[in-house]
Amino acid sequence: MTQNIEQLDRLDSLSAIRGHFALPDNTIYLDGNSLGALPKASAERVHDVVNRQWGDDLISAWNKHSWIDLPLTVGDKIAPLLGAASGQVVVTDSISVNLFKLLITALNMQPDRHIVVSEQGNFPTDLYMVQGIEALLGENHCKLNAVPTEALVDALTEDVAVLMLTHINFRSGRIHDMQRLTRLAQAKGILVIWDLAHSAGAVPLELDALHVDFAVGCGYKYLNGGPGAPAFIYAASRHHAHIRQPLSGWMGHANPFAFSESYQPAEGIRQFLTGTPSIIAMAALDAALDVYADTDMQAVRDKSVKLTELFLSLKNEHACLSELELQSPVDTAQRGSQLSFSHKDAYAICQALIEHGVIPDFRAPDIVRFGFTPLYLRYSDIAQAIDVLVTIMDEKRYSHPKYNERSTVT
Amino acid sequence: MTQNIEQLDRLDSLSAIRGHFALPDNTIYLDGNSLGALPKASAERVHDVVNRQWGDDLISAWNKHSWIDLPLTVGDKIAPLLGAASGQVVVTDSISVNLFKLLITALNMQPDRHIVVSEQGNFPTDLYMVQGIEALLGENHCKLNAVPTEALVDALTEDVAVLMLTHINFRSGRIHDMQRLTRLAQAKGILVIWDLAHSAGAVPLELDALHVDFAVGCGYKYLNGGPGAPAFIYAASRHHAHIRQPLSGWMGHANPFAFSESYQPAEGIRQFLTGTPSIIAMAALDAALDVYADTDMQAVRDKSVKLTELFLSLKNEHACLSELELQSPVDTAQRGSQLSFSHKDAYAICQALIEHGVIPDFRAPDIVRFGFTPLYLRYSDIAQAIDVLVTIMDEKRYSHPKYNERSTVT
Repeated sequence: MTQNIEQLDRLDSLSAIRGHFALPDNTIYLDGNSLGALPKASAERVHDVVNRQWGDDLISAWNKHSWIDLPLTVGDKIAPLLGAASGQVVVTDSISVNLFKLLITALNMQPDRHIVVSEQGNFPTDLYMVQGIEALLGENHCKLNAVPTEALVDALTEDVAVLMLTHINFRSGRIHDMQRLTRLAQAKGILVIWDLAHSAGAVPLELDALHVDFAVGCGYKYLNGGPGAPAFIYAASRHHAHIRQPLSGWMGHANPFAFSESYQPAEGIRQFLTGTPSIIAMAALDAALDVYADTDMQAVRDKSVKLTELFLSLKNEHACLSELELQSPVDTAQRGSQLSFSHKDAYAICQALIEHGVIPDFRAPDIVRFGFTPLYLRYSDIAQAIDVLVTIMDEKRYSHPKYNERSTVT
Repeated sequence: MTQNIEQLDRLDSLSAIRGHFALPDNTIYLDGNSLGALPKASAERVHDVVNRQWGDDLISAWNKHSWIDLPLTVGDKIAPLLGAASGQVVVTDSISVNLFKLLITALNMQPDRHIVVSEQGNFPTDLYMVQGIEALLGENHCKLNAVPTEALVDALTEDVAVLMLTHINFRSGRIHDMQRLTRLAQAKGILVIWDLAHSAGAVPLELDALHVDFAVGCGYKYLNGGPGAPAFIYAASRHHAHIRQPLSGWMGHANPFAFSESYQPAEGIRQFLTGTPSIIAMAALDAALDVYADTDMQAVRDKSVKLTELFLSLKNEHACLSELELQSPVDTAQRGSQLSFSHKDAYAICQALIEHGVIPDFRAPDIVRFGFTPLYLRYSDIAQAIDVLVTIMDEKRYSHPKYNERSTVT
């Protein structure tokens, strides 16, 4: 097996990309789906933006370094990863704030409907944002219907305004069939919003080809844009002339520097901007995206599948790991770039793994989640992670009380 | 005069603070009210957050470096500058997004009222956000009444829900009497939202003592937090138990990492958080605020007044500068830390000044705006700026066609 793994690394067409990341020694990072690792280019770019652009050029940097256009230029770098033509993606705010913009936009486009269908077990902020709109507009204008996964298709009736789903579930890694659900929803006149938090940069996407209406996504997971990196909005260009988003701030105005007193939305995707964006945060994401410039998303996906399959096959060689029960789909086609396992001591197992140099994520109440980032993981990292996991499980090292001390975030 | 100016600089109790900033050579920066200069500590902190905290500690940095608490800890650093006890200020999102949260919050607290009084000539995004709410809720639930300054008091009638004003006008620098207007509004049962974009870090504030309800402010002007730095919200603690803000994202949840499916707001000021914040952007602001830790805001204000008075007295010595007509109040007590002048060639004058190393701001249609940041400006800088201005105006150098080529932002 060892020899096979060496060969897998030797033949890996993406192996050189690892060199673009600043990775700590003695760490196997299986949490790039929570916070992507630091691209060396992001560190350099942030240094330049802070010290030279801000420090030396001060206010003139807004023009001189095209800061004012960054939300669109960075959006256009993300577009190819989504299967989107340019001019349909803008980088701005957080996923939560962007969902608010899109949900209201979509509800306004469907004045005779008010139901938002989503899924139980969706990432909570998605549901919370709909609940906030319910409280704001009243249930006659917005009503969340979060159903079990198996009830989704039946919930798509002709009184539904919006279907809002996360493409890849944060807990299980299960992938929704975007093509089928988009088609079924649109056949009933329902607008579709996809949350791509665990998809963008992890799996190939075809938003334009699948005729998706709207999407949001995250800058700090697979796109490696840094902690709390700005998020993005995709809005199909066919909708641009017919929408009005509610967070109508000056950066989304047709002419922000005319300082007119009436809001007039910008044309195109720029109308989704609201306030002044953090240039430092956006620059980190901008540089991180250059890693993807010459990278084929199908090659990324192929390696992701191989990494997860290797993890599972090595896990199955060890009886002591059988207590960790797979909660992700067995079929790789239905699984994103992660593997989740349930265990009653999941929290302690995560802490023990971290102390031994393998970084997973704990997701309440009982999930150990491993994320697989093909850009900087080697097959040998997987084998080594399994060795550490065996040590911890076989000797029950995780049962030491120190591994059960809870901290705020995990 | 020259000798006097040297003496002013020698006796300046704030003179040492200039050393905390990385300022470019041969530049007199009179635009700190648009984008504050780079604090050396911010450059160092950003480098550390990117390279060591993100790069080395990856996901564990959220706990290890207390990233998760930054919105509150940075808020508590801003609080003293606002005259606010701790626990009432949170750093989050942009002014525009924060105004949306507060406007809806305040409207919900006044269910029988729906009028939002503001001022013509307010910074446009403030008005735009109200217009967005009008479009969203309908004019029966939110109606903007933007009146001329002199009509403000009469507009404060008992059917008004909210008075939303910018404390210091971005164009003229005129200061509103916060105490009087807050008292007059509250006497009619009106809630008050102050926009402190040009106030925080420029003038002493007493939000608690003046019984202000809500406020927003900017991280990238006088607080020097970097381009597009996150903004802040102040909400008086007496309101915390009785509000529900509409952008109910997971970071404002009582227990974000329980991943429950029902939104339950956090107690206190944390409930105003929405999505995941940019840690890099917030760290730059956090470090910048340390400059204020040992700085008396009254001393800052006193120097600001002296700087603007010096500018005006030197200006009056030159007949060629009389064409520049003061649009800011003559009375220093009614004026923030800026001086605005109108001139039909304001745009070209700004461009010519910039080429000669003096950086003002142009504000359409005809304003040359000079900002005075006491933390890093010397009295000798003012004298030198006047010399440059005289050169440009006396010889009409600004009339060269190259100074009229318009760029996007100025």
